Amino acid sequence: MERHFDEELKDLRKDLLKMGVMVQEAIFKSIEALKNRNKAQAKDVIASDDKIDEIELTIDEKCIDLIARHQPMAGDLRFLTTSMKINADLERIADLSVDIAQRVLELVDKPILKPLIDIPRLSTIAQNMIRDAIDSFVKKDVELAKKVVLFDPEADKLRNAVQDELINDYMSKDPKTADRAVALLLIARHLERICDHTTNIAEDVIYMVEGKVVKHHPEELR
Amino acid sequence: MERHFDEELKDLRKDLLKMGVMVQEAIFKSIEALKNRNKAQAKDVIASDDKIDEIELTIDEKCIDLIARHQPMAGDLRFLTTSMKINADLERIADLSVDIAQRVLELVDKPILKPLIDIPRLSTIAQNMIRDAIDSFVKKDVELAKKVVLFDPEADKLRNAVQDELINDYMSKDPKTADRAVALLLIARHLERICDHTTNIAEDVIYMVEGKVVKHHPEELR
Repeated sequence: MERHFDEELKDLRKDLLKMGVMVQEAIFKSIEALKNRNKAQAKDVIASDDKIDEIELTIDEKCIDLIARHQPMAGDLRFLTTSMKINADLERIADLSVDIAQRVLELVDKPILKPLIDIPRLSTIAQNMIRDAIDSFVKKDVELAKKVVLFDPEADKLRNAVQDELINDYMSKDPKTADRAVALLLIARHLERICDHTTNIAEDVIYMVEGKVVKHHPEELR
Repeated sequence: MERHFDEELKDLRKDLLKMGVMVQEAIFKSIEALKNRNKAQAKDVIASDDKIDEIELTIDEKCIDLIARHQPMAGDLRFLTTSMKINADLERIADLSVDIAQRVLELVDKPILKPLIDIPRLSTIAQNMIRDAIDSFVKKDVELAKKVVLFDPEADKLRNAVQDELINDYMSKDPKTADRAVALLLIARHLERICDHTTNIAEDVIYMVEGKVVKHHPEELR
């Protein structure tokens, strides 16, 4: 019985990893679609979301079922409730990639606004943060998780810089850029929200390993 | 022992209700601050968020503790895992009210753009949806929860209408309105996301009562 439970936990960890990889791909593809003005790629991101939604539901049911059948104590229970939260955050990150892909579809038929300012850089930050957050989960690496949480303000700063540039250098100077500038501004915000959800994941990993709540208490990280 | 558990569940329900009321107040106040161009009110919303964060953590710990101590079966376990999800959504709705309040602080010192288009209407929709979602949780009223889920597309439509109007009638015509129009556009988006989180809550209530997953499957509602 005990052994069996361990195997089920291992399977669950694998499922979450698989979900993490799919979500990373979704972000990457949505930004590639933006860079390459590639409609097919954007539509691909949108189409893949159904599969991610299905996996989310499966993982969620699996967690509840494991809690119900095995009535786990402290450590395992914390792993299972954390898995449910990470699962939800990953699904929302996938939704945000769909949002980006939809903005890309709005943009591709219009003239290009200019290089994409710091959006590709923000996207790289988001992808690195997710990679590290998932890694910290797999390796139960609290230091790596803390690194992710402490990096989040960088994403905020960059998002604000992109937004200011779009408002001051584009919309305010040339009203014909308004719709395209708004689409790019929203993409920057989608990316920054991806970083927020990734921060949630890292905070949950810290809670899972140390039983310490750092959410809403960044001073605990220093 | 059983009796004690029931009382703890009742307390938990009360905590969630209290949190729901606080969150409704936060939205209401943030939009009042916008209407009245009232800095103090906006700052009040931002300041209250710490308390909501604290309550979120308390509820979350309480749920995990109840699962660990009482090892509840099917129905009660579903109630507890659903409570954790609703709790997380309520906290995010409060965060979005803070986002609205921050946009209000950006706007108050600038000349007024014009009436607030359909933003007050969108805010009323959001507040009604939350009231009904919380009500459906308390009364285990699946029909009311379904009503909430089916209402969400209205919020999407209204958000799009506000956004189109801001881009076409303001930014594109008068570039000097860009920063204010962006702030209003973001407020509309914050409200629409509040409706999304409220929809999550209603979907969770349906799952809790019927054990049926309607998330990602709106056709199940008809």
